[in-house]
Amino acid sequence: MASRVAVVGAGPSGLAQLHSFVEARNQGANIPELVCFEKQHDWAGLWNYTWRTGLDEYGDPVHGSMYRYLWSNGPKECLEFADYTFAEHFGKAIPSFPPREVLYDYITGRAKKNNIRQYIQFATAVRWISYDETKETFELIVETLADGSTRTEEFDYVIVGTGHFSTPNVPSFEGFAEFPGRILHSHDFRDAREFAGKNLLIVGSSYSAEDIALQSKKYGANTVTITYRSAPMGFSWPDGIEEVPLLRKLTGSTAHFADGSSREVDAILLCTGYQHCLNFVEESLRLRTANVLYTPNLYKGVFWLGNPKMMYLGMQDQYYTFTLFDVQAWYARDYVLGRITLPPRAEMAADIDAWRTRLDGLADAFEEIDFQADHIADLAKDVDYPEFDLDLTRENFKKWEHDKEASITGYRDRGFTSPCTGSQAPAHHTPWWQELDDSMATFLR
Amino acid sequence: MASRVAVVGAGPSGLAQLHSFVEARNQGANIPELVCFEKQHDWAGLWNYTWRTGLDEYGDPVHGSMYRYLWSNGPKECLEFADYTFAEHFGKAIPSFPPREVLYDYITGRAKKNNIRQYIQFATAVRWISYDETKETFELIVETLADGSTRTEEFDYVIVGTGHFSTPNVPSFEGFAEFPGRILHSHDFRDAREFAGKNLLIVGSSYSAEDIALQSKKYGANTVTITYRSAPMGFSWPDGIEEVPLLRKLTGSTAHFADGSSREVDAILLCTGYQHCLNFVEESLRLRTANVLYTPNLYKGVFWLGNPKMMYLGMQDQYYTFTLFDVQAWYARDYVLGRITLPPRAEMAADIDAWRTRLDGLADAFEEIDFQADHIADLAKDVDYPEFDLDLTRENFKKWEHDKEASITGYRDRGFTSPCTGSQAPAHHTPWWQELDDSMATFLR
Repeated sequence: MASRVAVVGAGPSGLAQLHSFVEARNQGANIPELVCFEKQHDWAGLWNYTWRTGLDEYGDPVHGSMYRYLWSNGPKECLEFADYTFAEHFGKAIPSFPPREVLYDYITGRAKKNNIRQYIQFATAVRWISYDETKETFELIVETLADGSTRTEEFDYVIVGTGHFSTPNVPSFEGFAEFPGRILHSHDFRDAREFAGKNLLIVGSSYSAEDIALQSKKYGANTVTITYRSAPMGFSWPDGIEEVPLLRKLTGSTAHFADGSSREVDAILLCTGYQHCLNFVEESLRLRTANVLYTPNLYKGVFWLGNPKMMYLGMQDQYYTFTLFDVQAWYARDYVLGRITLPPRAEMAADIDAWRTRLDGLADAFEEIDFQADHIADLAKDVDYPEFDLDLTRENFKKWEHDKEASITGYRDRGFTSPCTGSQAPAHHTPWWQELDDSMATFLR
Repeated sequence: MASRVAVVGAGPSGLAQLHSFVEARNQGANIPELVCFEKQHDWAGLWNYTWRTGLDEYGDPVHGSMYRYLWSNGPKECLEFADYTFAEHFGKAIPSFPPREVLYDYITGRAKKNNIRQYIQFATAVRWISYDETKETFELIVETLADGSTRTEEFDYVIVGTGHFSTPNVPSFEGFAEFPGRILHSHDFRDAREFAGKNLLIVGSSYSAEDIALQSKKYGANTVTITYRSAPMGFSWPDGIEEVPLLRKLTGSTAHFADGSSREVDAILLCTGYQHCLNFVEESLRLRTANVLYTPNLYKGVFWLGNPKMMYLGMQDQYYTFTLFDVQAWYARDYVLGRITLPPRAEMAADIDAWRTRLDGLADAFEEIDFQADHIADLAKDVDYPEFDLDLTRENFKKWEHDKEASITGYRDRGFTSPCTGSQAPAHHTPWWQELDDSMATFLR
């Protein structure tokens, strides 16, 4: 086999892809040449924390949206690698909601075990991906960032796993240009202590708004006002956090809301989500999608309908994360290895349509969880990804949703059962709302 | 004439280039097809203020480094358009150090007069520039940002005027990852009032450090500590601004300096300069340079030695700005129009070498000013850029250097003589250090 496979990005998706190929080779398969391009200096994507914001040392957009004191907001028992359990990595049972450093250690632990690093070209940016119809190969314009050298390389397959939580969606409101304090998107949020003693305005009503509101209050913000467009999140917030209707405008440092109320704010945090930004991909190969559970034009959520040798990983809105990336990577791998043959285009399109029609009819988060679990099952049935108790993860997610309703500051204190080992997670030694130390050493103590 | 010219960027350089062609046409010349690509929604480059930082609404790096309350830090009598004076634009004499809005109005005034806007494709990013040796044309991969559509266009000439104050040079220091406050580069600095009451650490010792230190103090910072690598700027700073040796590390919010001293700081502002970032240009055409008064590989400071149909404007370190861009644009135009023939490559290389050898021997700012004035004279002698008193601008710059030594808070209160009209600028109605209102209306009152 002489084919060459480009993997773009060495985050959880890209690492899963490389890992999947090495697993096949470990079991005797011939695998193609793998080249992974990663613009950061190190692996693990968003989990590779950086203090930098805006542009990196080479003038490229900073990939990271990770902030200090981030703890998993979903149970680890819903993202466990079926072939590398938390118990295997840490040598003991650990609580269900680990802080960033612990998950970083876990992700990179599996990658180290299979010596994945050898396939990755770090500090290397992919500037442009196009397809040559005549040669039937992809051309990637690639830049080595350290010396600015550029080159064009040819590949038979391209697998893009660059994530979609790196390019902020940044709306503008009247009065922003005159606001006397900091305005930032959650992408540039790094350390809640910057806002100690401040009155903070958070725009948004999804996971970032929820978590950054709590985080900021936990580390000393005076008040946090959350402004929502359509509906409040409605959790039982601790004192000092309040939800109000949509921001209408700023006059100086006064924020005015749709219900006619107003308040003085010191800083504005836009938790207004992210864009799928693939501005290094030519139009005919470029995925364009909102953040949805089943993207248009990707068969099995992976294969670009217009040219299935172009693949994308993890581009969906996510309940499931690492587990989803793993089964997608296994599926992509088996297509490249010739173990799976894709159906004709019309059949692929009809399959996508069926999933998207079902998606349109989903009523609530519980149905969304089942939808994404079914997507995983649909991939897993065709590949040799190790078995795990998928139905237990559905239950875990649903229990988690109820836990959040019951206590937004207390849900991370609950323990869940592993879908891989069946063992129950212990409670953390300190309630999350009181725990200011997010180090791995303290967490594992 | 069937040639096509791409102008990349509609800031002061790009606008000068378009203007120069239109001036030639106004005088009867046939001019080529002009297409200017500008990634922002509006023209004037850095002078087009935005509250945005980091990435723009399309996920592209924000071009702007402009902050609120920026006043020109050099006399306007050193950057006056010889064919469109301040007196012509404003209809009266105005003081020598205008705030941003006034300069924006002036730059765009000339562009409007010649109806330059028709040549500009706004919100359009150039993704990649390469040269096809066979066709002898440039290929530009271009993206319309609003809809993500991409296309490849061919041009006979490319003129890049994208500036070099948009991509921050961001060093790292020990302890940054744990610092509990905001760390930002001056590129992301927007409103000094964010830092009112704060103890600010500024890293750097050039124009940005100088101006942002003053700005921050003027708008209420408690203290400003400026840390320098090699030498302090040494101005007579107002109370509350102090220069100290290089930052060694942070421990928490304590900054430790090379002289063993330390102090508590609330925020860190990296005024550490900018990079020439041309990551949309293939290696063989890409200018790589430090911020110097005469760049390597650019004949006359404009023509890429490896392929003179590739041109750059304004890529030098700058005393002179708009005047410099104008004469460079006129020279580039006359080359494209066939009015100027470039010498053989060896001769061009020797000319660059001679300038760079002279550059190496410059002793101080006064010699640097003369050096850049001579560069302007070297271009102006071959083109029909209107006459102005270049020697007066040398004197103005040298006087300005002395004024800054005499009073760093008072130098903007001085008036200079126009090299174009010979008239003397009036004093501003309010001393700069007391003037908190930077609006054009107040300035012109």
